Amino acid sequence: MSKPPALLLQLDRKKGPSLHPQLALGLKGLVQAGVLQPGKLVPSSREIARDLQVSRNTVLQAFDRLIGEGYLETAPRRGLFVNQALAEKPFPQSSPKVFHASPDHGLCGSPNQQFGAPSPFCPCQPDVRLFPLKMWNRLRARSLRKYGPNLLHYQSQLALGAPALRRSLATYLRGSRGVQCDWHQIAITGGSQEALYLLAQIILRPGCRVAMEDPGYLGARRIWERAGGRLVPVPIDAEGMRPIAATAAPPSIIYTTPSRQFPTGACLSLARRLALVEYAARTRAWIVEDDYDSEYRYSRPPLASLQSLDSSQRVIYVGSMSKVLFPSLRIGYVVLPNTLVEPFALARAALDDHGPLIDQATLAEFIDSGVFHTHIRRTRSEYARRLDVFVATVAALKLPMVFPHTDGGMNLTGFLDTATQEAAYALALSRLGMDVPPLSHYSLKRTRPGLVFGFTAFELDVIRDALKRAAKALRPAGGASARMGG
Amino acid sequence: MSKPPALLLQLDRKKGPSLHPQLALGLKGLVQAGVLQPGKLVPSSREIARDLQVSRNTVLQAFDRLIGEGYLETAPRRGLFVNQALAEKPFPQSSPKVFHASPDHGLCGSPNQQFGAPSPFCPCQPDVRLFPLKMWNRLRARSLRKYGPNLLHYQSQLALGAPALRRSLATYLRGSRGVQCDWHQIAITGGSQEALYLLAQIILRPGCRVAMEDPGYLGARRIWERAGGRLVPVPIDAEGMRPIAATAAPPSIIYTTPSRQFPTGACLSLARRLALVEYAARTRAWIVEDDYDSEYRYSRPPLASLQSLDSSQRVIYVGSMSKVLFPSLRIGYVVLPNTLVEPFALARAALDDHGPLIDQATLAEFIDSGVFHTHIRRTRSEYARRLDVFVATVAALKLPMVFPHTDGGMNLTGFLDTATQEAAYALALSRLGMDVPPLSHYSLKRTRPGLVFGFTAFELDVIRDALKRAAKALRPAGGASARMGG
Repeated sequence: MSKPPALLLQLDRKKGPSLHPQLALGLKGLVQAGVLQPGKLVPSSREIARDLQVSRNTVLQAFDRLIGEGYLETAPRRGLFVNQALAEKPFPQSSPKVFHASPDHGLCGSPNQQFGAPSPFCPCQPDVRLFPLKMWNRLRARSLRKYGPNLLHYQSQLALGAPALRRSLATYLRGSRGVQCDWHQIAITGGSQEALYLLAQIILRPGCRVAMEDPGYLGARRIWERAGGRLVPVPIDAEGMRPIAATAAPPSIIYTTPSRQFPTGACLSLARRLALVEYAARTRAWIVEDDYDSEYRYSRPPLASLQSLDSSQRVIYVGSMSKVLFPSLRIGYVVLPNTLVEPFALARAALDDHGPLIDQATLAEFIDSGVFHTHIRRTRSEYARRLDVFVATVAALKLPMVFPHTDGGMNLTGFLDTATQEAAYALALSRLGMDVPPLSHYSLKRTRPGLVFGFTAFELDVIRDALKRAAKALRPAGGASARMGG
Repeated sequence: MSKPPALLLQLDRKKGPSLHPQLALGLKGLVQAGVLQPGKLVPSSREIARDLQVSRNTVLQAFDRLIGEGYLETAPRRGLFVNQALAEKPFPQSSPKVFHASPDHGLCGSPNQQFGAPSPFCPCQPDVRLFPLKMWNRLRARSLRKYGPNLLHYQSQLALGAPALRRSLATYLRGSRGVQCDWHQIAITGGSQEALYLLAQIILRPGCRVAMEDPGYLGARRIWERAGGRLVPVPIDAEGMRPIAATAAPPSIIYTTPSRQFPTGACLSLARRLALVEYAARTRAWIVEDDYDSEYRYSRPPLASLQSLDSSQRVIYVGSMSKVLFPSLRIGYVVLPNTLVEPFALARAALDDHGPLIDQATLAEFIDSGVFHTHIRRTRSEYARRLDVFVATVAALKLPMVFPHTDGGMNLTGFLDTATQEAAYALALSRLGMDVPPLSHYSLKRTRPGLVFGFTAFELDVIRDALKRAAKALRPAGGASARMGG
């Protein structure tokens, strides 16, 4: 690390006299991103004050806050350290879902902030410029004509969503993912995030064990934790999530991303799928299958969903429109076993009655008219091209990490040998303004080091250019060169 | 009650062989609507089977389910009763927010269901036909042009909503409601319901006392209860919520609708406002001010919001676009004291990241362009006309209840002398397909009997015609005639 980490931070001096909250937030972000690592010494207040040209008092106030929040701890006569405990346990609730390299790590926005675009290689982002917005608007107008003013009314009976959309989705999921469902089992939610949140309300009792892929999706982890679940990390290998160890108490909930494990990209093998479904039926555990990007598989047809293999109604299937349409639509869905339909509806009604209905009616038209399928086909072939270019460029540039072969998804993981490399590379790329989270960011236990690259939101030129800059920045830091795994 | 209550139910025989879940749901609705009252004998399975032309077995299965859920209870050799405990405590979580007289009481929808319109006199519903939808669509198109594809991206930093909308709302609330706020204190939510839900996550510790107007808004009550709050009912009189009794432990949260108490319509007097704000400052309680329809006051200017009187940052101001724009938009907002901004953002990010952004950007344009003010003015004068016609018609028809004078809001309460009248009238009106909830539906303790009429969603002819039918149906049942209170 040639540059001091504090230089990664940018403070906005127009925000008023108190810079220390900004600084505290920024330092927190560096801890969460793994740039400042648990157990490691934090640069002195004098150094940071000098690097950022702020008063030492500002830095000390920020330190105070982070000590209070448990991010930093003091060791007498040795200095200030990142709390060692953060290495063993997940970050506190303030951990953002994805590490963003942008100067503002906050969730609260800033006064003149515009809507931003993802920077390379932010994971799991679709290219929204490919979205057929004109057609969407036309179908929206059609829905408004079709249903008239009734589409604007409050509909207390529609806590689970517009029936037309639930029917369209049931047909789609039966056909494309083999999901066994009737329309009444489908619930529309505010992104898949709200689906997971509501599931936690109805299936998670505080203190119960939740088996979770490690590394895994932070949005889900945060939900199980906030609801009082005790996380049981399950390691990943090339066949996806490994079988759950025979423990004293089996978990009540098993959260998994079988189609494409997030973030490693592994696909759960059929043998393991069958074993997992059998395990859940035997132990009466719920499996939450998060099928967040299964639409994007480029050469082989996808394996059927876990849900399709389950004859015991123990699998809850969760999906999202954020990847196939656009994220700011905030539409996700869940396919519920019969016994959970009513509890889910009650929880949803208590939370926020129901979701915005014009978008739901429009989406039903979008699916029924076939535009949905056309859009998936179009983005699939475009993303396949981007994957090819990414892989070829990485090989040509000898990027110093190992990318296992993949034929699907929206992200690639570049594996590394050491945690030190991971931290150094993450730092170097974030200095370039890139959004490439380290695998440790998603991990409960220490896992194989690596970096997660999303490739779908970026045009070919952007991919080539950004990878060139990345290769240049990483060259002096590492000795190894890019290897493509099998 | 001349007809058996079961005849209020309509079963859909096309739904398949099992009618008992439908019947159970319907009977539950009758209990919730107060038609079948706590402690009262339930009609025999033989009678219901005959009235509805279903098998006795179907009825017995529905009974079994309701006994299991705690709605009904058996008394040896006396028969089946509505659980007496329901009189003292609020309904279980399955209680719908508003009693709907439609045959389907469920939250889960039915397969060929269309979007419905409110039936007379469903409370708190705007007339969405007055909404300038074309202008809204034009401003939506303008937002999409203005922000381009970025408006479609995921924006992790916008958990509290689009900055443009937060700024517009801050200006509006300062000007129209005297709310003391800076833009960063505003959070956009999925209806005001989600605002209340998230507030419960951050300010309510299980077991803490929540003072709540009685009768009061069921959506709020359900939220405090689900979060583990202990409700402390506070009675209402003509000056609004009465002072909170000096109890051993003061409440941690006080929920109130000061502008227009829901559902009685009383406006909290200035003396009580000042006392309440002082009480909260002294006891360190949070006041949740739900200002759900303050835009609609017809002759006098509104009293300033409670929040505007508070110098101790103890008032949390909650508002909604459901009444002034249209309910299916699902946009609400909250003005947070500074200390709650970050916890609220973290809770929101964990729940569902952020809300749909195209609608938020459109709403900002709608407010900034002045169309919002024009629409409020237009609906205000139209609703004032409807109020006048409602009041005049009720007087002319001698509707047998007392309507206190009101100059605002969306609802009127017709007070009655006895609970028996209330139940009989609610039953009679629901038979006419009307949606006129009894006050007891909103009450924790036994309160003054009455019926709640919403008048804003219905055109003058509909109001006149429905009131005529109501007067005819109520005439044989009651002796008193309509009296207009002062």
